[in-house]
Amino acid sequence: MIVALAGGIGAAKLLLGFSKLLPPNQLTVIGNTGDDIELFGLRICPDLDTITYTLSEKINPETGWGLQDDSFECVRALQDLGAPSWFRLGDRDLATHLWRTSLLQQGHSLTQVTARICEAFGTPCRLLPMTDSYTPTYLVTEQGELHVQEYLVREKCRPLVRAPKYLNIKEAQPAPGVADAIAKAEGVFLCPSNPFISIGPILAIPGVRELLIQTEAPVFAVTPIVGRRALKGPAAKMLAELGYPLSPTAVAGLYKDFLNVFVLDEQDRQLRAEIEGLGLKVVTINTIMSSIGDKIDLARELLELI
Amino acid sequence: MIVALAGGIGAAKLLLGFSKLLPPNQLTVIGNTGDDIELFGLRICPDLDTITYTLSEKINPETGWGLQDDSFECVRALQDLGAPSWFRLGDRDLATHLWRTSLLQQGHSLTQVTARICEAFGTPCRLLPMTDSYTPTYLVTEQGELHVQEYLVREKCRPLVRAPKYLNIKEAQPAPGVADAIAKAEGVFLCPSNPFISIGPILAIPGVRELLIQTEAPVFAVTPIVGRRALKGPAAKMLAELGYPLSPTAVAGLYKDFLNVFVLDEQDRQLRAEIEGLGLKVVTINTIMSSIGDKIDLARELLELI
Repeated sequence: MIVALAGGIGAAKLLLGFSKLLPPNQLTVIGNTGDDIELFGLRICPDLDTITYTLSEKINPETGWGLQDDSFECVRALQDLGAPSWFRLGDRDLATHLWRTSLLQQGHSLTQVTARICEAFGTPCRLLPMTDSYTPTYLVTEQGELHVQEYLVREKCRPLVRAPKYLNIKEAQPAPGVADAIAKAEGVFLCPSNPFISIGPILAIPGVRELLIQTEAPVFAVTPIVGRRALKGPAAKMLAELGYPLSPTAVAGLYKDFLNVFVLDEQDRQLRAEIEGLGLKVVTINTIMSSIGDKIDLARELLELI
Repeated sequence: MIVALAGGIGAAKLLLGFSKLLPPNQLTVIGNTGDDIELFGLRICPDLDTITYTLSEKINPETGWGLQDDSFECVRALQDLGAPSWFRLGDRDLATHLWRTSLLQQGHSLTQVTARICEAFGTPCRLLPMTDSYTPTYLVTEQGELHVQEYLVREKCRPLVRAPKYLNIKEAQPAPGVADAIAKAEGVFLCPSNPFISIGPILAIPGVRELLIQTEAPVFAVTPIVGRRALKGPAAKMLAELGYPLSPTAVAGLYKDFLNVFVLDEQDRQLRAEIEGLGLKVVTINTIMSSIGDKIDLARELLELI
């Protein structure tokens, strides 16, 4: 059984590859819920939904988030009312949030609710939220503290980031199943996700780092930085603003206490020795996933590493 | 200044007539919020919205509720997920509920939120919720207790009703402005609304009956029953099931402690003496409102009664 720690869009590409090669019960995804937001009374879990929609092949392929062929009547009406409308809620996407909120209010845990949503979508993996608690990530920026969705969506990643802040995380516990999955895994993969706002929140839950240190399974991280650029999102900008070199080596350094193998992109093979200097094994593969073929190829090569 | 106590669809017809004859600051509507429901984490106020949408001429004319030309993608997606989808939420209608919920969670009162929504829609009246508290109406039925929306929408009024039950009503207060409006009115009108689930909840708020008894303004009730049938909804069925004669006289009897004038439909003029026997003045007018002309005509005749 394979375990993957995952953020949203970047991670979902690799997970789609895994899901084409593994039966659903052999792939456990631990999804970041640090980017969850409570908006309009609704609990919205963007990363969990991106994984659910991508793996069930209902994702909007143009944006990488939201549902294919969705409409935006509700958000247009919010705009017409003069209400906040920066968060682009599709009409069909909204149904997921309404149902989730309703089930949570009935007393179901996020783990249970996520399982029901995945079942309804036919998602071919076991998707666990990192925790059942609400632990939103905030970013301390030059404009003050912003919820990660405000930073990503409303502010389009423009403000300079000084530090991430994982709210309520010290009181949070890994969701049921997380510890067991990591302990029993044959291999653990950190998807090519942002180290501060996707993987960082998962690692900040008390006990998770220790689980990764203790597991007998090899732990792999796939670089989210290729050729000094982020594959997706603001990872490169955040590395620089937080005082790290803009390099895969910096990401490898963040994980070196529990990591066994760092998966570097072929383009960056000259960094191999530098990362090996951190005490890590390094593998170089093509990590750029454009086509579905690329995703399956990368997933297959990663599985062969175990 | 005129005050109208109002339920939803039936009331909104008459209110539209009033709004064509009076400037917005001369028409205060006290809307039933007993049919409010918390669904999917959202606060939904069907009667307030029906009034808002009707008076701002954005109502769906075919149903009498919801917005004109709305789409139903979200509710279709709920259905596809296997989530409860009996409450027919239009996509644009949803924006009203999302915005309301958001403002309530920010600490605004329902009175303030309703004013903002009316302003955004350009609603030509002052619409007050009957109370800022959440006081949902339940119906004790042969199938157990049902929220009034479950009864009306999900169960299509089929279960036999044994009693209405106004939850939390004893602790509720009239919303700010309600007492003052009734005290200062030149005329108070009970719209042709259901006496048990539309007008009943308003009258059940501690103090409201006393305000109606004490006001110097004449208090009028427009019959919701014409020719032994309800103009709209289950009023006739409920009268019968609750042990009342199926007659405007029964409705007049429910209001006789504070009412001055009962407005009877011409079709039922033979009941005049019976209702006068309750100690009420009786006026007979055509109360059936099909066209916009009918609505304005009835509103004009009512205003002339003052």
